[in-house]
Amino acid sequence: MDCFRDRKIIITGGIGFIGANLAERLVQLGAQVTLVDSLIPEYGGNLWNIEPIKDRVRINISDVRDEHAMKYLIQGQDFLFNLAGQTSHVDSMNNPYTDLEINARSQLSILEACRRHNPGIKIVFASTRQMYGAPQYLPVDERHPLSPVDVNGINKMAGEWYHLVYNNVYGIRSSVLRLTNTYGPRMRVKDARQTFLGIWIRLLLEGKALQVFGDGKQVRDFSYVDDVVEAMLLCAASEDANGEIFNLGADDPINLKDTAELLIRVTGGGEYRIVPFPPDRKAIDIGDYYADYRKIRSKLGWKPTVPLEQGLARTMAYYREHAGHYWEAENGA
Amino acid sequence: MDCFRDRKIIITGGIGFIGANLAERLVQLGAQVTLVDSLIPEYGGNLWNIEPIKDRVRINISDVRDEHAMKYLIQGQDFLFNLAGQTSHVDSMNNPYTDLEINARSQLSILEACRRHNPGIKIVFASTRQMYGAPQYLPVDERHPLSPVDVNGINKMAGEWYHLVYNNVYGIRSSVLRLTNTYGPRMRVKDARQTFLGIWIRLLLEGKALQVFGDGKQVRDFSYVDDVVEAMLLCAASEDANGEIFNLGADDPINLKDTAELLIRVTGGGEYRIVPFPPDRKAIDIGDYYADYRKIRSKLGWKPTVPLEQGLARTMAYYREHAGHYWEAENGA
Repeated sequence: MDCFRDRKIIITGGIGFIGANLAERLVQLGAQVTLVDSLIPEYGGNLWNIEPIKDRVRINISDVRDEHAMKYLIQGQDFLFNLAGQTSHVDSMNNPYTDLEINARSQLSILEACRRHNPGIKIVFASTRQMYGAPQYLPVDERHPLSPVDVNGINKMAGEWYHLVYNNVYGIRSSVLRLTNTYGPRMRVKDARQTFLGIWIRLLLEGKALQVFGDGKQVRDFSYVDDVVEAMLLCAASEDANGEIFNLGADDPINLKDTAELLIRVTGGGEYRIVPFPPDRKAIDIGDYYADYRKIRSKLGWKPTVPLEQGLARTMAYYREHAGHYWEAENGA
Repeated sequence: MDCFRDRKIIITGGIGFIGANLAERLVQLGAQVTLVDSLIPEYGGNLWNIEPIKDRVRINISDVRDEHAMKYLIQGQDFLFNLAGQTSHVDSMNNPYTDLEINARSQLSILEACRRHNPGIKIVFASTRQMYGAPQYLPVDERHPLSPVDVNGINKMAGEWYHLVYNNVYGIRSSVLRLTNTYGPRMRVKDARQTFLGIWIRLLLEGKALQVFGDGKQVRDFSYVDDVVEAMLLCAASEDANGEIFNLGADDPINLKDTAELLIRVTGGGEYRIVPFPPDRKAIDIGDYYADYRKIRSKLGWKPTVPLEQGLARTMAYYREHAGHYWEAENGA
C-alpha cells in the first residue's frame, strides 16, 4: 500500500464514520488528506472522529451540494473517496428532495467537476446494498436485479450509475463498492440513521433494553469498518477495479435476535425486546439479506478479517471510552 | 374501454408525439382530457399534433418542473398519463442537470403532489428500454439487469422507480411501460431526438440520403404509436397492472439496414449510406436490442397489431400531408 504515500487524497464525508477511519489509515500510509464534510447534525460527521489526526489533515467544512466548493477542492487531487451521503431510509421518505440532492444530483456535479477540471482522478464511490431491495435469491451477487424499496435506494442507484457511466464514457476512473451494514468505532450511535447497531450500542451503554423488530429472524451480514477501509484502498490502487461494482459481505451472516444476544454477551449484560415493526420501517423492510462477495475476493483479493464478535467487542470498548463525545453532540454541544 | 368515459385525465407531454395520439383516442372514448406540455422547442411538443382535438381538450402550457402548477393540475384527476420527458441520449450527456431535473426530480415532485393532494389517482408512466443498456441476452425481458449507458438511462431509471416505490409504499397506483422505438404520425422528425426513424423520414421526404451508423446490422424493434396507446389504456384500466413493469416489443425485430431499405421501399424511392458511428453516439450505443413482451401479453392481453411496413406507410403518408407543420416549427415559426 505504498501507492498512497505523498499522494493527494480527498474524502467526502471525511469526518463521518467510514471517512474518518479511512483518513486515519491514509495518514498512516503517508498520504496528504483533505476531508470534506458538511457536519449536518443528523448525518455522520463528528469532529471527535478525527481527533487523533486533526493536525495531519486538511479540514474543509462544506457540503457536496456546494458545486463551486467541490469544483475547487477536486482540483489537483489524485484520489477521491466519495463517501458523503444521506443514509437514512426513513428520512429519504420524509424528505425525498434532500435525499435526491445529496445522493444523486451532487454526485453528478462532482463527476462533472472531475470531467472538466481533473479527468485523471481516481474515484471510489461508497454505494449500498439497499438498491437490491428484497433479495430474489441469496446470497446476493452483483448481477442481482436492482429493485430499490425506498427513495434512498433509488437515489443511491442513480449516484452509483453516474460514476459507472462517467467511467465508461469519459474515462473518469471509478470503482463502486456496495456496502452492507458497516459497523465499528466512530459509527453514529445517537440513532439508527446509519445502522440499527448504532442505537443498540447506545441503548446497552445506557442500561436500556434494545428493540428487535419483527420476529428477529431477519438475516444480515456486517462489515467491520477496518475491512471496509481495506476494500476502498484496494479499489483505489487497482486499475482492474475501474468501472466495476463490488459487493462487500461477511462469512458469518446472522439473524437480528442472535446479533442482539451476541452484542449483549460482548457487553457483559443487557436485555432486548422483540417488538412489532413500526409501520414506516415495515413498508421498506427487505427481509433476509447477505451478500456474495466472491467477485472482490477473486479480483482484488479482499476478504473480511475481523469476525463479528471481535468487531463488536472493539466497538463497545471504543464507546465505553468515548461515549461522551457521541452523546454530547446530540444535545447540541 | 368504456372506463374512460367522463373521467378526468391529465397527460404530461400531452402535445408531444405519443401524448397527442393518446389524447385523440381518449377524446374519442369520451374522456375529459387535460394536456400539460412545456413546448420546449427541442422536445416533442407541437401544437399541430392536437389540431384535430384542440377544441375538445383543455390545454395547459407548463413544465413538469413547475411544482406549483403540477400540484394544482393534478387535483381532481382520475388518471395521469405521465409522458413528459427529456428523451435525447446525446443531450443528456451534454446537459445532465436538465435531464436530471425533468426525468428524475420532476417525477418525484409529481408523485409527492399525488400523495398529498390526490392519492386515489392512477398513473401510467412512460419509461424506456434505455435503462437495460447493452443487452446481456435477447430478447430482453423485465428481469434483465438494469445497466444504463448514459445519463438519460440513469435518470429515467430513477423516475421509473419513484413510481414503483410510491405504488408499493403509499399505494399511489402506478404502472410502468418500458417503451422501445415508438414511431408513427406526430413523431418528431426534425432530428433524431426521439428516434432515428424521425430524421430518416425527414431526409427521405427532402430527397436526401439517410445515414445508417456502424455496419447497419444492429437489430431493433419498433412499436407503432397506436399500439403503444393501447398498451397505456390497458395499464390504466387494469388493477393487475399496479406496481408492474411491462416491456413493449414487436414480432418483427429488424436490423437498421433492412429498416432503411423497407422505409425507402414504402416511400417509393430514396437512398441510404452506411457511415461510421459519430463518437458521441458510439460511446452510448447498445448493440442489438429487442424485447420479450410476453408479460404484458399474458397479463393484459396486449400485442402489437400494426406490422412495421404498414406503420411506416401510414407514417410517411402523414408527413407527406403535414410536413410543413413539422419543418416550419424548426425555423422558429
